[in-house]
Amino acid sequence: MKKYGIIMAGGGGTRFWPLSRKALPKQFLNLTGKDILVNETFDRLSGVVEKENIFVVTDALYADKTYELMRGRVTGERVLKEPAARNTAACIGYAAMEILTRYGDGILCVVPSDHYIRRGELYAETLRQGMKLAEKNDCLVTIGIVPSYPATGYGYIKSGRTKDTGGFSQTCREVEEFVEKPSKEVAEEYLREGGYFWNSGIFIWKASVILQAFEKLLPDVYEYLSEIGRAIKSGNERQVLEEVYPRIPKISIDYGIMERADNVVMLEGRFDWSDVGSLDALALLHPLDAGGNVSLGKHVFIDTEGTICYAKSKLLAVAGVKDLIIVEADDVVLVCAREKAQEVKNLVEQLKKDGKEEYL
Amino acid sequence: MKKYGIIMAGGGGTRFWPLSRKALPKQFLNLTGKDILVNETFDRLSGVVEKENIFVVTDALYADKTYELMRGRVTGERVLKEPAARNTAACIGYAAMEILTRYGDGILCVVPSDHYIRRGELYAETLRQGMKLAEKNDCLVTIGIVPSYPATGYGYIKSGRTKDTGGFSQTCREVEEFVEKPSKEVAEEYLREGGYFWNSGIFIWKASVILQAFEKLLPDVYEYLSEIGRAIKSGNERQVLEEVYPRIPKISIDYGIMERADNVVMLEGRFDWSDVGSLDALALLHPLDAGGNVSLGKHVFIDTEGTICYAKSKLLAVAGVKDLIIVEADDVVLVCAREKAQEVKNLVEQLKKDGKEEYL
Repeated sequence: MKKYGIIMAGGGGTRFWPLSRKALPKQFLNLTGKDILVNETFDRLSGVVEKENIFVVTDALYADKTYELMRGRVTGERVLKEPAARNTAACIGYAAMEILTRYGDGILCVVPSDHYIRRGELYAETLRQGMKLAEKNDCLVTIGIVPSYPATGYGYIKSGRTKDTGGFSQTCREVEEFVEKPSKEVAEEYLREGGYFWNSGIFIWKASVILQAFEKLLPDVYEYLSEIGRAIKSGNERQVLEEVYPRIPKISIDYGIMERADNVVMLEGRFDWSDVGSLDALALLHPLDAGGNVSLGKHVFIDTEGTICYAKSKLLAVAGVKDLIIVEADDVVLVCAREKAQEVKNLVEQLKKDGKEEYL
Repeated sequence: MKKYGIIMAGGGGTRFWPLSRKALPKQFLNLTGKDILVNETFDRLSGVVEKENIFVVTDALYADKTYELMRGRVTGERVLKEPAARNTAACIGYAAMEILTRYGDGILCVVPSDHYIRRGELYAETLRQGMKLAEKNDCLVTIGIVPSYPATGYGYIKSGRTKDTGGFSQTCREVEEFVEKPSKEVAEEYLREGGYFWNSGIFIWKASVILQAFEKLLPDVYEYLSEIGRAIKSGNERQVLEEVYPRIPKISIDYGIMERADNVVMLEGRFDWSDVGSLDALALLHPLDAGGNVSLGKHVFIDTEGTICYAKSKLLAVAGVKDLIIVEADDVVLVCAREKAQEVKNLVEQLKKDGKEEYL
């Protein structure tokens, strides 16, 4: 069966502000010093799926940006343009319908565009096994990352019994429950107890199988998807999409499908993974200096510890501080305590409230 | 007797970096939001001395800058250009020789160019009384600021008996001793004990009287000054100045004269004063917000306390921090703990060592 990659690149979050902006969300940032996240995602996925079979789903707003920044990777119809942001269920359902209708059934590797992964060979191996599993068993495969610390920023998958998967090297488990981001204490308890994995948002399934799940568990969404499917066949996809898509309920795939389906299987992901959920995560992506600092850009440090610096053009001169995030972007300088990285959202909210749209 | 103002504007310190730069030292910065410090000094002094009689002594390096930024205040020969920086004794001796030789004896009010003073009417009153005192008694008058907190960044004057000054409103005292910047404990002891004043670096004396003090206490410096005096008379001041001035020993007026002369008198200064010795002092010059923050420039704060922000062009977005100094200058962003403001000097040293002259 043919294999496809689906990169979900519609996000427009604010947790990477002021590096990410309304016009340039996180997936388009080069945070690793190598390439922008969505291109790293593409290249990683192309080790598992033919390049020509990788699709990027993004908000129509970002279509031009996507063609421009992913030049040489995706063209034309392989950028699926959402007329509105309707969360992951809509995005994934639309992509599955597109593939099934245009190209026939296939195995889809669905991956977020803006995560960070190290040890790509393990990632590839895991995805390959996931595809075999999905093809053989008609199941919904999700990757659960083996947690390396009691993270409070991730949802967890509580796994059940190990399943026999016919000699796969990655362990396969039943899923008991998807659990929300825990407190520090609960996360520590999860790690002590074992059997808990980070919910990576990476999914593998047949287009037909996920659409069956939509039909069963999200019939209203499925109705819209079917309408889009008919439009694809009759050649007026764009028009129908623009009418229908903005009306699809905003539901995440986790809430809508994963937590309720009975054919979910978790494959253990043993590769290094981060959702790069806030500027604080830059410390995971880069080597630390002797003071535990990370610095991207020009800098001079005296008596500085645990501080994350990102300078676009100016020299950052830092003295006598600890555990800060300092970002110099085009027209904004952010200074934030690392443990308050989530406040960045509130700064953006404040600016919105103050009518300072030019900074968003 | 004619009255003169002498503004010492040769300084090129680094404690206000990155706002102050090699090419633009602190006296040329607008820190108050009103005007650059040297112009505020000029305007303040012009309440006491005729504008036409105010001289600015500066490093020849800064002569063009001085004419440019003090346009409408000083012109031509009223900018005295030092061929090299030789500390305050040389600067003051040169200015005194210039006045005495060209214009005859007069009372000189010698003031630093880069300090901050509030309550200008008290300042003016104090200077006027100082001038009367200097004229009548041929003494060296220094202004001692009544300390408002146990500062560790200032030298102190240990005063002696109150002197009878014939009905002046400002108290006049004998000077027992000039003391170095104290530790916190010692400074607190000074305030408890009383009779200690901050050494403001403001002096009042006759040109002839200070030159007599040079002759007696710094005879080698006096020799050079006399040579300059003869050159002024014979019309080749510039040439001789360039030969002689760089050879004058680098001594401060405090060390060279004030601590050793027997005709020193201190007048109490009851006006608000700061030497604006570091970026931390910006908090004294501006109203604080509810969180105790000072912000010059565009900013958005969340959960921020006691922080001093200065933004030249970008928006400063600050969250979850306390007691920082954040400065966005042309090509540098400084982030420094307030209590480590003195580290700024070391950052500059580090950059010098690294050969990054463009940032100095």
